[in-house]
Amino acid sequence: MISRVLSADLPEHIGERVTIAGWLHRRRDLKSVTFLVIRDRSGLAQVVLPGEAEPAGAQPAGAEPAGAQLPDEETVLQVEGLVVASPQAPGGAELTAPVVTQLSGPAQPPPFDLYRPALTAALPTILDHAPATLRHPQLRAGFEVSAASAAGFRSTLDRAGFTEIFTPKIVGSATEGGANVFSVDYFGRPAYLAQSPQFYKQAMVGVFERVYEVGPVFRAEPHDTARHLAEYVSLDAEFGFITDHFDVMAVCRDAVAGMIDFVRERASSAMQQLSATLPEVPVQIPYLHFSDAMELISAATGEDVRDEPDLAPAHERWLGEWAEREHGSELVFITGYPLHSKPFYTYPDPERPRSSYGFDLLFRGGEIVTGGQRLHRHDDYLKALAARGMDPAPFAGFLQVFEHGMPPHGGFAIGLERFTARLTGAANVRQVTLFPRDLHRLSP
Amino acid sequence: MISRVLSADLPEHIGERVTIAGWLHRRRDLKSVTFLVIRDRSGLAQVVLPGEAEPAGAQPAGAEPAGAQLPDEETVLQVEGLVVASPQAPGGAELTAPVVTQLSGPAQPPPFDLYRPALTAALPTILDHAPATLRHPQLRAGFEVSAASAAGFRSTLDRAGFTEIFTPKIVGSATEGGANVFSVDYFGRPAYLAQSPQFYKQAMVGVFERVYEVGPVFRAEPHDTARHLAEYVSLDAEFGFITDHFDVMAVCRDAVAGMIDFVRERASSAMQQLSATLPEVPVQIPYLHFSDAMELISAATGEDVRDEPDLAPAHERWLGEWAEREHGSELVFITGYPLHSKPFYTYPDPERPRSSYGFDLLFRGGEIVTGGQRLHRHDDYLKALAARGMDPAPFAGFLQVFEHGMPPHGGFAIGLERFTARLTGAANVRQVTLFPRDLHRLSP
Repeated sequence: MISRVLSADLPEHIGERVTIAGWLHRRRDLKSVTFLVIRDRSGLAQVVLPGEAEPAGAQPAGAEPAGAQLPDEETVLQVEGLVVASPQAPGGAELTAPVVTQLSGPAQPPPFDLYRPALTAALPTILDHAPATLRHPQLRAGFEVSAASAAGFRSTLDRAGFTEIFTPKIVGSATEGGANVFSVDYFGRPAYLAQSPQFYKQAMVGVFERVYEVGPVFRAEPHDTARHLAEYVSLDAEFGFITDHFDVMAVCRDAVAGMIDFVRERASSAMQQLSATLPEVPVQIPYLHFSDAMELISAATGEDVRDEPDLAPAHERWLGEWAEREHGSELVFITGYPLHSKPFYTYPDPERPRSSYGFDLLFRGGEIVTGGQRLHRHDDYLKALAARGMDPAPFAGFLQVFEHGMPPHGGFAIGLERFTARLTGAANVRQVTLFPRDLHRLSP
Repeated sequence: MISRVLSADLPEHIGERVTIAGWLHRRRDLKSVTFLVIRDRSGLAQVVLPGEAEPAGAQPAGAEPAGAQLPDEETVLQVEGLVVASPQAPGGAELTAPVVTQLSGPAQPPPFDLYRPALTAALPTILDHAPATLRHPQLRAGFEVSAASAAGFRSTLDRAGFTEIFTPKIVGSATEGGANVFSVDYFGRPAYLAQSPQFYKQAMVGVFERVYEVGPVFRAEPHDTARHLAEYVSLDAEFGFITDHFDVMAVCRDAVAGMIDFVRERASSAMQQLSATLPEVPVQIPYLHFSDAMELISAATGEDVRDEPDLAPAHERWLGEWAEREHGSELVFITGYPLHSKPFYTYPDPERPRSSYGFDLLFRGGEIVTGGQRLHRHDDYLKALAARGMDPAPFAGFLQVFEHGMPPHGGFAIGLERFTARLTGAANVRQVTLFPRDLHRLSP
């Protein structure tokens, strides 16, 4: 390994000669001095070189002379120098009397200045040049939040006795009933990309009782909006021996709280970089039945939405404000979605058969989780498919599970990119998606 | 949540009435007594019922009378009863005077008896009926080992300053050059399933320096063998500022050691269940240059393999035995693979230009990891593609990364299923793959 000190650790080495290495984040040529800012995984370090008129002293073989032949920004450099205290430098220390060695090829200038603190480039520019633009600290910060969130999800469920599973993404029949699936040529046979691990995670409740998966899901979404993607990361959980969907909501609450905790622990400087704040997660997240929500919205807005099958984005925003106002919570569960608006495996409310035990979790006025109790008896599946006029044949492999004894169970799925976007205040989910895929975008 | 005690905790409740819940693992009707063995996520619990001639006492509404109407194996039951010490029962305690309630629909008998300790069913039977057969403790154990291995990989790299990434699985051009890719209909445009996250993880070295990903990869493998899958889980790592491939091998060694440590901590009873043993991971795993390996094999076997471009399975087995014999190690690195047998992004050995800085790690005589140092200069990529007669056009998006400054870097990929198979002694990688995909198999 190249022997070096990380830039964040420079203040511990004042008075010593050390080596740092990273990307040339910014070069500033003044009249008698040149400043180099070096970016590594820990942050930024400032290097002071004598101006072009004052070449540095003897150089080791292979090293570039300081000043004159310095390369462009984003070139990777190794810099050996003396650490001195400097209140103006990042971290309070800088490198002087440097010897600079170039580690990469010469760098082309990125499509915009990565060193400017505010990210002002247009989204298509950012996405077209992602390998370079993702290096901007503000974009990078979003992915640190995303990584911490996924780790918090896993850690919380590990502690609750869940087992991690890895289920296939190429499937023989469409998961949710046929719409919005991508087709795959599977050795000459038709196949599809999984829209969710739904059936597999339910089957695995029969093996481990409590399972989770973190993996890609695929939706051939014809919607070109700020919140739809053709491929995203789904944080899925499913578990058995529940009483009803409130048990699922309780575990979902803990998973979300665990994600927030990990962001606090591991990505607080990233959150600061984004001027983003963490929500308080109440011990009991407030909840509202779908019918009651529609009554409230109708009464407040004058628009009669009581027969709508689902919440529109404007309704979600209204409910987010309601929860904030009435309960001081940035999170709110909507329970009791109409049965016909939820997938066929959703458990009906025995008291109100047109309602279901399906729920969504809204965070800052946008849906980030969907979940619920599922049917667990084979007969109930046949009846539910018949009631919807759906052919049970494509689901034969799935229904097999329920012939072999399944406990009452349920689960939920969190969209990692949507969650991260809400948490960081990103206006478009693509800003927090590495190399997003949508109706128009397939590269880089 | 259904209020219950896990079967493993029964011994702490001797003398109390408690409720357990799980699958009816086995039912044994003797002349005057019936034994039920209940399986939950923690293990097995024995329940003793009076025989059919002696019906149980008063039952709460909805509960089944004991004995006569007991359902078939795999039905999900809730059992309330008195815990008594019993040296013959699993864990030394059993449930008596039980009240049994059925939680699932009636269960169909599985394709073979799940309660028999040894798994003797043929692999196609196991795979065709996976939702039921995966419940067999011996199959389940393999997936516990797999989950622990993945967690150990992540934990080790987290501690080494790596950041987790999630990269797209639908890609616009084939990763490794065109062979063995699955085609996807992407909104009417041609696309492919990613054969590896290779280009993306390299690009992300430019952002985070050190990254890893745990996710599916897709290979349209025409090989129908015990070790090939069309979809598998790849544990990928990539990092910058290396001196050469020995730095990559050092991190790879730590990742494998961390996986083994997690299996020891989290899945030791699963390993016992499988009569499998953990290897000692030497601080320095022995290594052998490919040319030297071929000389040794030629000398030992009399077959001249010195011009072979790659190791055949028999050679890998021979080298596994060699490492065990010469170094007392179940792991051995093979370094210096011929450049033309490795992908175009592989770094050549400056001293022996026909050799590369690519390596494999063999474990118990089978390859589980492949890795190496990569090219990091844009010019070197153009030269490498030209030398192989490959068109650079499809790689334009990828090559962009190297125009913006990349440090010397490398990485590796561990096949989770192959690793788990070697660790648990599974003869076929399909035994440790949930719902495997291969040339012939697309369901369940």
